[in-house]
Amino acid sequence: MAILSHDHDTPDSLEEFRKYRERMNSEILGENNLVINRFFALDTRTYEAGALDVKTKELLGLVASLVLRCDDCVTYHLVRCAEEGVSRSEIFESLSVGLVVGGSIVIPHLRRAVDRWTELEKKK
Amino acid sequence: MAILSHDHDTPDSLEEFRKYRERMNSEILGENNLVINRFFALDTRTYEAGALDVKTKELLGLVASLVLRCDDCVTYHLVRCAEEGVSRSEIFESLSVGLVVGGSIVIPHLRRAVDRWTELEKKK
Amino acid sequence: MAILSHDHDTPDSLEEFRKYRERMNSEILGENNLVINRFFALDTRTYEAGALDVKTKELLGLVASLVLRCDDCVTYHLVRCAEEGVSRSEIFESLSVGLVVGGSIVIPHLRRAVDRWTELEKKK
Amino acid sequence: MAILSHDHDTPDSLEEFRKYRERMNSEILGENNLVINRFFALDTRTYEAGALDVKTKELLGLVASLVLRCDDCVTYHLVRCAEEGVSRSEIFESLSVGLVVGGSIVIPHLRRAVDRWTELEKKK
Amino acid sequence: MAILSHDHDTPDSLEEFRKYRERMNSEILGENNLVINRFFALDTRTYEAGALDVKTKELLGLVASLVLRCDDCVTYHLVRCAEEGVSRSEIFESLSVGLVVGGSIVIPHLRRAVDRWTELEKKK
Amino acid sequence: MAILSHDHDTPDSLEEFRKYRERMNSEILGENNLVINRFFALDTRTYEAGALDVKTKELLGLVASLVLRCDDCVTYHLVRCAEEGVSRSEIFESLSVGLVVGGSIVIPHLRRAVDRWTELEKKK
Repeated sequence: MAILSHDHDTPDSLEEFRKYRERMNSEILGENNLVINRFFALDTRTYEAGALDVKTKELLGLVASLVLRCDDCVTYHLVRCAEEGVSRSEIFESLSVGLVVGGSIVIPHLRRAVDRWTELEKKK
Repeated sequence: MAILSHDHDTPDSLEEFRKYRERMNSEILGENNLVINRFFALDTRTYEAGALDVKTKELLGLVASLVLRCDDCVTYHLVRCAEEGVSRSEIFESLSVGLVVGGSIVIPHLRRAVDRWTELEKKK
Repeated sequence: MAILSHDHDTPDSLEEFRKYRERMNSEILGENNLVINRFFALDTRTYEAGALDVKTKELLGLVASLVLRCDDCVTYHLVRCAEEGVSRSEIFESLSVGLVVGGSIVIPHLRRAVDRWTELEKKK
Repeated sequence: MAILSHDHDTPDSLEEFRKYRERMNSEILGENNLVINRFFALDTRTYEAGALDVKTKELLGLVASLVLRCDDCVTYHLVRCAEEGVSRSEIFESLSVGLVVGGSIVIPHLRRAVDRWTELEKKK
Repeated sequence: MAILSHDHDTPDSLEEFRKYRERMNSEILGENNLVINRFFALDTRTYEAGALDVKTKELLGLVASLVLRCDDCVTYHLVRCAEEGVSRSEIFESLSVGLVVGGSIVIPHLRRAVDRWTELEKKK
Repeated sequence: MAILSHDHDTPDSLEEFRKYRERMNSEILGENNLVINRFFALDTRTYEAGALDVKTKELLGLVASLVLRCDDCVTYHLVRCAEEGVSRSEIFESLSVGLVVGGSIVIPHLRRAVDRWTELEKKK
């Protein structure tokens, strides 16, 4: 049942996630595809402070990622939320909005999001 | 050939939208299906103030609705944002997050969202 | 606000829906694109009785269409459900599954589905 | 290519799936977020017998999960279908509806669903 | 049944589509939200000739829009395909790929796409 | 905590992907479900040369898979693109269309797609 498998002994740690993300971003940007590189730059700009503060924007990114059910995107925004000092209650309320908007199909991603958040809290 | 306009499931006016919404909610809740009625009650609770204020939660609902590309849901949250005193810049920044997360496929919904917001501003 | 507009006095009746569907299916199949024509034939086969009866299969098609939020597909399966003698309670329970799986983003489609079902009941 | 990797010798068994699900549900519910906890309770209610029997509702949940392409949700409903005595032919016909509605993008999830079902049959 | 309605006498013509698109793009860009404006500029760059010619890129945009089921995006790319001299057979083959990848849920959008294409052919 | 890695439903190696795919396709087709078997046959027909050449059709399949965010489908079309002699620049331009249409939510899949493509280039 190989393809159904995920390694429970060698976790996809946040550190591995960061490393893979950095390595692949570097390979992608190194290709110098104008559209892709500009998109990556724009993506970074999107979460900078403006009329809304960074924390609110990261919560928007988190909930958008949750309802679109992308674990890696959720992880990324959870890391950023931790850096911005978002509280556990604020995370849970944000996730609750995503759950109600997106439905029970979101639940497996909610589980992994909470697991990640607890992991992030332990790192502090 | 108006069947071609199905992409826009938003009614003419905000007033018509409200009326249709109320009439159908009334018909749906009147059926007394336990699961549906509890879901509707829960949906209302989701946006009440808690660790996050109502305004932030409405922005979360707005961006979630935009990336999932539901015009009616976007309209609903825009109405609530207007009631909560959200500014035009805050709306645009929220929409910009939804645009970057969701991509160009979001643009037709962004157009209708901005159109709706301008309509809401004129009502003040 | 033209693009946002829909005529509320000349409803997209089930009759108009059927006519447009038939006219365009005829134009599409007349093109003799092998893949498209076989897909249409296969689509019809999908809902024929087998290990599951037609009614159950139509309910599966209905809920799949609801969570994927396609009004026309929902309408099509509601028409078929009416032909197969599905009851109002069975429709509401099926829709409730779609609502919980798919979340509040499904609600505008739920409203239109219930509206359509009531229209279908009146035709009997 | 770490992030692409999954351990093929230590499969994500149904038992591991159940344990992780239980552990995380427990952590999530322990947070006492009213909206999330009510959603979980509602999710359970959704599949109880009513106008439709439990088996039909589980098949609706299965097909909704398949077209929304959530492996964990598919696994959950397959487990429940096995408990309700659904036959292999009924599972395949349900999956066929999901495949035709959702398209070839569903195929990788179909493979994992069939793999899971065969695993469930062996457990009997 | 108002919200289900679409005006069959005042069609959402290509001309109206273009006008609404231009008017709203103008209003959106006039807001000078940096992220949104850069996204719009990037969107235009995406379809310029490079390793792939413009025609191929427009077909990619068309099929991506079809499987994501956005009628306005499909219309936009059909207009561009017509400008680039794409043939009716090439359009149908592209749509067939979108149909098989995206499934029967795509069919209502396929109908409107073919309707639009025929309208575009008549304009030549 | 490897349940967190569910987002990556791609197996370690291309060889393992091929083996699992073949084994499960064989099990699925062996069930002789008429609808499923015809769908699989139709899926193969979809990418055969016609008005469009095989290479263009594979690029259409690739971008459709990317915006729908299915790693296995992306891998499959990358393998086919490699067999059809698609260049690295053509792959990147195709992926750039998918990125702009589908938004930043596509980025994790873009990373894995580029990783896979580099792996395929090394095999030559």
